[in-house]
Amino acid sequence: MALRTLSAKTAAALDEHLMSTGQYTIDQLMELAGLSVSQALYRLSPPTTHRRVLIACGPGNNGGDGLVAARHLVHLGYAPSIYWPKAGKAEIYARLGAQLKDLRVPRVEDFSSAIRETDVVVDAVFGFSFSGEVREPFPAVIKAMKEAKLPVLAVDAPSSWDIESGPPEDGPGVGYMPTALISLTAPKPLVKHFKGRHFVGGRFLGKDVADKFEIDVPPYKGLDQVVEVDVKGEKL
Amino acid sequence: MALRTLSAKTAAALDEHLMSTGQYTIDQLMELAGLSVSQALYRLSPPTTHRRVLIACGPGNNGGDGLVAARHLVHLGYAPSIYWPKAGKAEIYARLGAQLKDLRVPRVEDFSSAIRETDVVVDAVFGFSFSGEVREPFPAVIKAMKEAKLPVLAVDAPSSWDIESGPPEDGPGVGYMPTALISLTAPKPLVKHFKGRHFVGGRFLGKDVADKFEIDVPPYKGLDQVVEVDVKGEKL
Repeated sequence: MALRTLSAKTAAALDEHLMSTGQYTIDQLMELAGLSVSQALYRLSPPTTHRRVLIACGPGNNGGDGLVAARHLVHLGYAPSIYWPKAGKAEIYARLGAQLKDLRVPRVEDFSSAIRETDVVVDAVFGFSFSGEVREPFPAVIKAMKEAKLPVLAVDAPSSWDIESGPPEDGPGVGYMPTALISLTAPKPLVKHFKGRHFVGGRFLGKDVADKFEIDVPPYKGLDQVVEVDVKGEKL
Repeated sequence: MALRTLSAKTAAALDEHLMSTGQYTIDQLMELAGLSVSQALYRLSPPTTHRRVLIACGPGNNGGDGLVAARHLVHLGYAPSIYWPKAGKAEIYARLGAQLKDLRVPRVEDFSSAIRETDVVVDAVFGFSFSGEVREPFPAVIKAMKEAKLPVLAVDAPSSWDIESGPPEDGPGVGYMPTALISLTAPKPLVKHFKGRHFVGGRFLGKDVADKFEIDVPPYKGLDQVVEVDVKGEKL
C-alpha cells in the first residue's frame, strides 16, 4: 500500500504542531532532518565513489536541512561545498553557517562553475512552503541541476515543482527530474509525478502525531533514519 | 593505540567551546548525544530481545542525554520508561519531558520496583561533571543498578565513579560495574578501571576541535553514530 501524502498546508500545520504543542525546537527537528538527508545521500552515492558534494541551499528551512546535512556529510567522509546565496534571518542560520565554517566547508559563489567540480548534488533550495515563481538567483541554479550529468538528490521537493501538482509548466524547472528525492516525514503530493529513487526520512514522529496528521510512518529498519520506497511510495 | 582520555575539566571546556565559539546549541548537542546512546543500547541489547528499557536520569546534562535516548528508543522499537526524580531548571528539560509524555513514555516513581520489570537499564544519572557525594534519592538507584542481574549501559561514566580515579572507595557505588559504557566524544580517565563493553559516540567533532582538545576521533564506520572499542580504548 502506498504511503499517504501530506499536503503543503498539512505539512506546515505539522511543523507548527511539533514546535508548539510538541515542544520541539527548530534545532532538534532540523538536526534530525539534515541527518536523514545525509543518510539518503550515503545510500545514493557513498563517499568512496562520490566524495565531492555540492549542496544548493535556499534561504529557508529546506536550505537549513541542507546545511545540517553538509555538516554530517563531513563526518561521514565526504568533501561537501555549499552554495547559499541568501541566508534566512532566523538565528539558527547564522549558527549553522558558523558550524560549517569551523569545519572548513567551502561556500561557493558561482553555482554553475562549482557544479562542474563535484560528484553529486543536493537540491535543498525550496521545500514544502514553495509556491509561485523561482526568484533570482535560483533560476540558473535549477537550470544547472536540470542539465547536470550527475546524481542529484532533492530534499522534500525538486525545487520549482509545485508541492501539489508537481512539474511546472513554465520557468527553469520545466523538464527537471532529479535522480532521487528524500521526503521528510511523509511524501508530498508531487511524488506522483516523480520518477527516480525515493527515500523517506525524519524518524521522529510518534504514533499519536502520525495518526492526527494522517501520516504513515514508513518501515524504518534497524538504526536507519531513512527508508527507500518505490516510486509510488509503496514500501520496497 | 588507545584513544586519549578527556579529563573532567577538559570535557567541560569542550562543551563550553562548542556552545560559544562553535555556535552549537544544547538542543543540537544533546540530540546527537542521546541518539548515540540509543545506538549503543541497540548494539548491546536489541529490541527483539530487550524491549523494556528503564532509564535512570539525573538532574543535569547526563539525564538529558538519557531523555533524548528514550525518545529515539521509542522510534527504534523499544518500550522505554524513565525514572527522573529531579528535573534540571534549564528550559530544555521541560521540553524533553513534554516530548516523552506525548510519546506516552511512562515516568516511574519507584526505581527499585521498576527495575524488576525491565530487560535492560540505562544509567544516565551522573556524567563528567560529577564529583563528591551521591545525593538523595540516587544512592538507592545506584545500589539497585549494582545489584541488578540485567545489562546496564552507563552514559559517559558509571554513576558515582570519580571521573579521574574511577571506582569510589565508599558509598553506594562500591563494587558497581555496569555491563557497558558509552563515552561521549572521548573516554574519560575512569575508563582505565572499567571492565565491560565500551562504545564511543558523538560523531560531531571536526578535526580542528578534536586537535585543539587532544581528542582522537574514533574510527566510525558507515552511518554509525557509535563505535565499539576494547576495554583499554584500543580500536577493535
